[in-house]
Amino acid sequence: MNLNARQADLAELYSAMGQANIQALWTQAADLMPAQPVPRAVPWLWRWDTVLALAAAAGREVPVGRGGERRALALANPGLGGLPFATPTLWGAMQYLNARESAPAHRHTAAAIRFVLQGRGVWTTVNGEPCPMSRGDLVLTPSLAWHEHHSGTDEPMVWFDGLDLPLVNGLDAGFFEPAGEDYLDTAGGPVTSRSASLYAHPGLLPAVTPATDRHSPLMVYRWEHTERALTEVAAATGSGDAELRFVDPVHGGDALPTMRCAMRQIEAGCRTPTTRTVGSSIILVFSGRGQTVIDGQPFRWGPGDTLAVPSWCAVDHEPAQTARLFVLSDAPVIEGLRLDRTEVLAQQQKVRAAAK
Amino acid sequence: MNLNARQADLAELYSAMGQANIQALWTQAADLMPAQPVPRAVPWLWRWDTVLALAAAAGREVPVGRGGERRALALANPGLGGLPFATPTLWGAMQYLNARESAPAHRHTAAAIRFVLQGRGVWTTVNGEPCPMSRGDLVLTPSLAWHEHHSGTDEPMVWFDGLDLPLVNGLDAGFFEPAGEDYLDTAGGPVTSRSASLYAHPGLLPAVTPATDRHSPLMVYRWEHTERALTEVAAATGSGDAELRFVDPVHGGDALPTMRCAMRQIEAGCRTPTTRTVGSSIILVFSGRGQTVIDGQPFRWGPGDTLAVPSWCAVDHEPAQTARLFVLSDAPVIEGLRLDRTEVLAQQQKVRAAAK
Amino acid sequence: MNLNARQADLAELYSAMGQANIQALWTQAADLMPAQPVPRAVPWLWRWDTVLALAAAAGREVPVGRGGERRALALANPGLGGLPFATPTLWGAMQYLNARESAPAHRHTAAAIRFVLQGRGVWTTVNGEPCPMSRGDLVLTPSLAWHEHHSGTDEPMVWFDGLDLPLVNGLDAGFFEPAGEDYLDTAGGPVTSRSASLYAHPGLLPAVTPATDRHSPLMVYRWEHTERALTEVAAATGSGDAELRFVDPVHGGDALPTMRCAMRQIEAGCRTPTTRTVGSSIILVFSGRGQTVIDGQPFRWGPGDTLAVPSWCAVDHEPAQTARLFVLSDAPVIEGLRLDRTEVLAQQQKVRAAAK
Amino acid sequence: MNLNARQADLAELYSAMGQANIQALWTQAADLMPAQPVPRAVPWLWRWDTVLALAAAAGREVPVGRGGERRALALANPGLGGLPFATPTLWGAMQYLNARESAPAHRHTAAAIRFVLQGRGVWTTVNGEPCPMSRGDLVLTPSLAWHEHHSGTDEPMVWFDGLDLPLVNGLDAGFFEPAGEDYLDTAGGPVTSRSASLYAHPGLLPAVTPATDRHSPLMVYRWEHTERALTEVAAATGSGDAELRFVDPVHGGDALPTMRCAMRQIEAGCRTPTTRTVGSSIILVFSGRGQTVIDGQPFRWGPGDTLAVPSWCAVDHEPAQTARLFVLSDAPVIEGLRLDRTEVLAQQQKVRAAAK
Repeated sequence: MNLNARQADLAELYSAMGQANIQALWTQAADLMPAQPVPRAVPWLWRWDTVLALAAAAGREVPVGRGGERRALALANPGLGGLPFATPTLWGAMQYLNARESAPAHRHTAAAIRFVLQGRGVWTTVNGEPCPMSRGDLVLTPSLAWHEHHSGTDEPMVWFDGLDLPLVNGLDAGFFEPAGEDYLDTAGGPVTSRSASLYAHPGLLPAVTPATDRHSPLMVYRWEHTERALTEVAAATGSGDAELRFVDPVHGGDALPTMRCAMRQIEAGCRTPTTRTVGSSIILVFSGRGQTVIDGQPFRWGPGDTLAVPSWCAVDHEPAQTARLFVLSDAPVIEGLRLDRTEVLAQQQKVRAAAK
Repeated sequence: MNLNARQADLAELYSAMGQANIQALWTQAADLMPAQPVPRAVPWLWRWDTVLALAAAAGREVPVGRGGERRALALANPGLGGLPFATPTLWGAMQYLNARESAPAHRHTAAAIRFVLQGRGVWTTVNGEPCPMSRGDLVLTPSLAWHEHHSGTDEPMVWFDGLDLPLVNGLDAGFFEPAGEDYLDTAGGPVTSRSASLYAHPGLLPAVTPATDRHSPLMVYRWEHTERALTEVAAATGSGDAELRFVDPVHGGDALPTMRCAMRQIEAGCRTPTTRTVGSSIILVFSGRGQTVIDGQPFRWGPGDTLAVPSWCAVDHEPAQTARLFVLSDAPVIEGLRLDRTEVLAQQQKVRAAAK
Repeated sequence: MNLNARQADLAELYSAMGQANIQALWTQAADLMPAQPVPRAVPWLWRWDTVLALAAAAGREVPVGRGGERRALALANPGLGGLPFATPTLWGAMQYLNARESAPAHRHTAAAIRFVLQGRGVWTTVNGEPCPMSRGDLVLTPSLAWHEHHSGTDEPMVWFDGLDLPLVNGLDAGFFEPAGEDYLDTAGGPVTSRSASLYAHPGLLPAVTPATDRHSPLMVYRWEHTERALTEVAAATGSGDAELRFVDPVHGGDALPTMRCAMRQIEAGCRTPTTRTVGSSIILVFSGRGQTVIDGQPFRWGPGDTLAVPSWCAVDHEPAQTARLFVLSDAPVIEGLRLDRTEVLAQQQKVRAAAK
Repeated sequence: MNLNARQADLAELYSAMGQANIQALWTQAADLMPAQPVPRAVPWLWRWDTVLALAAAAGREVPVGRGGERRALALANPGLGGLPFATPTLWGAMQYLNARESAPAHRHTAAAIRFVLQGRGVWTTVNGEPCPMSRGDLVLTPSLAWHEHHSGTDEPMVWFDGLDLPLVNGLDAGFFEPAGEDYLDTAGGPVTSRSASLYAHPGLLPAVTPATDRHSPLMVYRWEHTERALTEVAAATGSGDAELRFVDPVHGGDALPTMRCAMRQIEAGCRTPTTRTVGSSIILVFSGRGQTVIDGQPFRWGPGDTLAVPSWCAVDHEPAQTARLFVLSDAPVIEGLRLDRTEVLAQQQKVRAAAK
C-alpha cells in the first residue's frame, strides 16, 4: 500500500472511530500524559483594592436574597476559560454583606470556609450555632451543614469564602438545598460558639465526641488562638517560616476532607525555598507586604491581595514586612488519593536587610 | 434611579468585574449549585462488535511503539465535549496487541487496571514482574509502576484498560516517563507472578509486607479465584446479586486509592433495585445478556459490551442470562472525600422466568 | 471398675500430669472462667491526711537519689497480696520532693503521668524539656522518655504519680536506664514548655508533626486550660457531670497508649448513674467533697483522697460540694484489645439540695 | 541522730506505711524496674508423646460435659507458680475428644484458636457455623463467639488450643456463659464453612463486610491454603525462613486483637538469627525435627512438641529436617500498647548439609 492509500485508510478508520464514539490514544498520548503537570490555570494575583471596590459597588447595586443566595465575587482564574474558579479544585471569593443584612440559609455538598480579613460584628450560623466573625477568625461550613450569614453592625463587612466547589462539581457530587419555611434561625447573634466551648481546648476533648469523621466538629477557629500559636511556634522553632494547620481536634487531621486551611508567618528578610508541589492553592495576604515568585513571574502583594497558585508551579515568598498568609489548598485530596509529590528546587539564601 | 439606569450600572459593574477577572456568584448560583448533580456525561453503551472491529482495523493500520505508546481505543462519552473519557473521572479503552507484539515500557501517575475479556498468552510486566493475562484476569499497574505489555501468542489479543486519567489530569497531578535505554525487561514471559506468590493467599500474609499503603502489593487477580469466589459468595448468601471487590490484602481496602474494581454476578430473572449513587462507573459485560436501565433509558447488552454510568443516574440491571459484570468506579475517591450518597428508588420485583 | 479404683486412677493421672507440668482444665474451669470478672483488687480509699503525713515523714527520713530514684509512696491495694499496685494495671503514688531537691534522671518503659494537687515551683524535665508543675497541671513522661524532677522553691511539694507499671511488668516488657554522666539537664528551670508552644493550641497544629504515634507530643497540660474547658463544656452541655479527656493533639486519641487521663466535674446534688465497666481506675479528688459507692460500699471523700476502683465494680458518685475528679484508667488497653464492656445499672435521681 | 535511732525511725515509718496500705518505692525500685525484663516464666518444652499419653488417659478416665466443659490439658509453665498458663499472657492446651463425643456450647471473653496437629472428622461450630478441623487447619473462636466441638469419626482426636486467658484474667475482663436450653446446634456436621465461602478468597471480599473490627470474620484457615502459601512464599523470597501470618482479610491486621497466629517454615540446615523480642509465645512443631536454643538452653524437638518462649529470651532455631512451626504470640498486645522491641543478637551462619 502506498502512503496516500495508507493515509486514506487511516482517515477512514478515525472517521469510523469518531462515529462510534471511540478515540485513538496513540494520536494524543503526549497531550493526555505530559511529562509533568500542565495546568490550564495560571498564576494570578487579585488586588484587594480592586476586589473591594467591586464588592462595595455590588453592595450598592445588588440585593442579597434567595436565588442569588450570596453577594460573593468569585476570583476567576484567566486560564480556566471563563469558569469562576481560582484553581481547578478551589473556588475563592470575597463576600460582601451590608450593615444589618442577612444572607439566607441553605446547605450544599460543597464545603466552605470563611476567613475574615477585617471588621467584626457579623456571624455565620452553622447548623444552628452562631459563630462570631472578626478579623482573623476562620469559620467552617462543612459539607451539607445549614448556614446563613448575619450582620449585626452598622458597617458593611467583607470576608473571604473558599469552597471545594470545582472539585465537587467535577465529580458530579453536588447537592443544594435552600432552607424551608420552618427553618429556625438564631438571629439573636452569637454570645459564645457551642462547638468552641466543646472543642477549642488544647489537648482536651469531651469524653463523648461526634460519631462522624466527615469534618471537624469545631466550627470556628478564633484569631486570638491562631495568633498566639503562630507566635509561639515561630519562637519555639526559631524558624522564620512558621506554618500552622487548622485541624479536626477529634481525629487530628485536616479540618475538612477536601481542603487544607493553613496560616503561615514568614519573617521580613526571609526568602523561602523555591518549591513545587502537586495540588493547587489560594493564598490570602492577611498582613505584611512582599513578593512571591511563581514559575519565574514576580507578584508584589500587600494586605488583602489574593494569589492563585496552580499545581506544580515553582514558588517562593519573600516578605518585605513580616507576613501572615492564609493558605487554602486541595492538599487533603491530593494526599488522600496518594498523588502527592513535592520538590525543593532551590534553598534560598536567607537575606536580612543589611543596616547601612 | 430608574430601571434602565440601574441596568446600565449593573452592566458597567459586570464589565468592570470581568476586566478584573471577577465573576458574580449571584447570577449563576443555580448553575453552580444545582439541587442535585447534573452530569455532562451521558449514559452510553459501546458495542463489543463495533469496538473489536475498529481495534482490529487499528491492529492492521497502526503500529505500536514509543510515542503513541499503546494501541488503545478510548471510549469517549458523547456528553463530554470530545474528550476521550468514559466519565469525568474514568478512562476506559480497549487495547489491541498483535501476535508477538510488545508495547514499550513506561510509567505514569495515572493508575491503570487491565481486565481480560478473552484470549490468553499475553503478559503485562509490572515493575519487572510478569503478570499473566488470560480471560477474566485483572492486572493492576498502580501509579508510577513501570509496565509494558508482551504478546507470546500467534493470535491478536484485546483487553480492557481502565485508568483514573481524567481525575489525575483534572487535579493537574500527572507525570509520565518512558523507560530509558537501561530498562531491563523480563521478556521471557511469565511462569509465575511473584506478587501472587506472596499475596494471593486467603487470610494469609507474609510476616514482612510492603511499607507503602499507596496501592495493593498484589498485581494480578486470577480468574480462577474470582470465579470460585463469585460462586461461593452467591451460594453462601443465597443472593441473586453477588458482588465482590478486588482489595489490597495488606490493608483491606480497595486495591487502588482512586478506582474500585468489582465483579458482580446477577442471576437471570433477577432485576436489581433501582439505585442511584454519587460517582461514576464503567460496566464491562464479562458474560451473559440482559438489559440495564439508566435514568429511564434501556440498554440491551451482551458479552464485551461496555456501559458508562454517570453520577446520580438511576440504574437497574435485568439479565436474561446470568451475567457477570466487571465494574470500575471512582467510589474510593467519592468515599474518601466523604461525598458518598446512595438512594434506592425502587425495590424491583424479583421475577424469575415462569415455566410454561 | 469400682468407684475407689476410679478415684485412684484419676489421682494417678493427675499426679502424672503434675509431673509433666500439665494441668486439667476441667477441674478448675469455673475458677478460670467465672461468669463475670472476679477482681482480687478491692475498692479502697487512701486519705490525703494519712498519705501526706507519711510522705512528709519520708521527706525527713529518706534522701532522694540514685538507687531509690524517687521518694514515692505507692498506694498498695490490700487485695493484691502485698504488691505495691493500686489496681492490676495501675501504679499510683504520692511523690514528695523537699525544697530545692532534685530526683535523678532516668527512663523506663513504663509510662507515667504526674498530676499536681497543690503547690508550685517544681518542674519535671522530659527529654530535656522543662515542664512547670503547679496545682492542676498534668505532666506526661511517656514510655522511655528521660525525666527528672527539680524543686525551685523553699517549700516541700507533693504530687500524684500514675504509672502503667503493673501492666508493663505483667507483660515482661519493662526496661530501665539511669541517666549517665553525660546527661545534660536544664536545671535552670522552666520559662516555657517547648511542647506546649508547639502543641497546646486549640484546633491548630504545626505543619510538621512528630512521626511517632507512640504518645502525645504535648508533655504538659496546664490547669488554666483544663479549668476553662471543664467550665465551658459543663455550660455548653448543661450536664451536671462533665468529663474531659487529655488527648494526643496530633492523632486525637488518648495521650498515652496505656492509660487514659480524664477530668470529671460533678455538680453538688448530682448523683451519677450506677455503672460498671471492664477495666480499673484510680480516682483522685482534686476538689470538692462527697461520697462514692463501689459495689455497695460507701466511701466519703475530700480533697486529696484517692480511690481505687477495680474492674466491673458498680460505681456511683454523689458530691456534696461540686467535685473535680482526676481519673486515671487502663481504658485504652481494654478498648484497644476489644475487651470493653459497660453496663448502666441504675439511673440515679438527680437530687439537688432542697431549699428549707 | 545516731544510726540506730534513725533505723528505728525508719522502721516505725515503714510500719505506719504498711498499716496505711502504702509502700515505699525506694526500697524496691530495682525489683520493680529492672534494667530489662525478668520473666518468671521459663523456657520450656512439652513432649508430644507425654502430652498425648496423658490426654488419651484422660480420654478414658474423664467424661466431657457441662461444668468441666472441655477435656483440655493445659501446658503449665513451671516458672509461673502453679498457674496453668504457658506464658503470662497465653494459655496452651491439648484438647482430646473421643469418637462421636461432643463438648458443650459456651462462650467467653477469652479468645481462642484451635490448631490441628493430626486427624480429621471433627468440627467446631462457631456462632452456628460448622468449621471442619483436619490436620493443619486453624479455627478461630473469637471473644464471645458461641462454640462447641463435635466428633464425627470413630477415632479419638486431639488438637491444640491457644487462648489469651491469662491476659484477659489479669485485666479482670473475663465473662463466661454456657449455652442455654434453646441453643440450636448444627450437629449435622460441616459441608462447607460459610465464613470461608465469604472471606477465604485471595484479594477478594464481598461488597458488604461485617461492621465489627473486633476480629477476623473468617473462622477457619484451611491447611491447603497455608501449605501452598508457605511453599510459594519460600520460593518467591528464596528464604530458608518463611513466615506467614493469619490475618483478618477485611482489615488486614492480625486475625485476633490479642493473639498473633503465624506459620513458619525453616529449611533444614538453616539456623535463624539469635533474636529477642518483647512478648511471649508458644511454638508448636507441626512437622520436622531440630533444635531451638532459648537463652543458651537447647531444646531438641520433633512433631507435636510444644515450646514456651518467655519475653526477651534470646532464641534461635536450627532444624535438622525442614520444619513447619505454628507460632502463637501476644505480639498484637505488645505492639498495640507500643511496647514492642526486638534485638538481633547474632546473625547465624547459614549452614547447609555438605555433600560427602
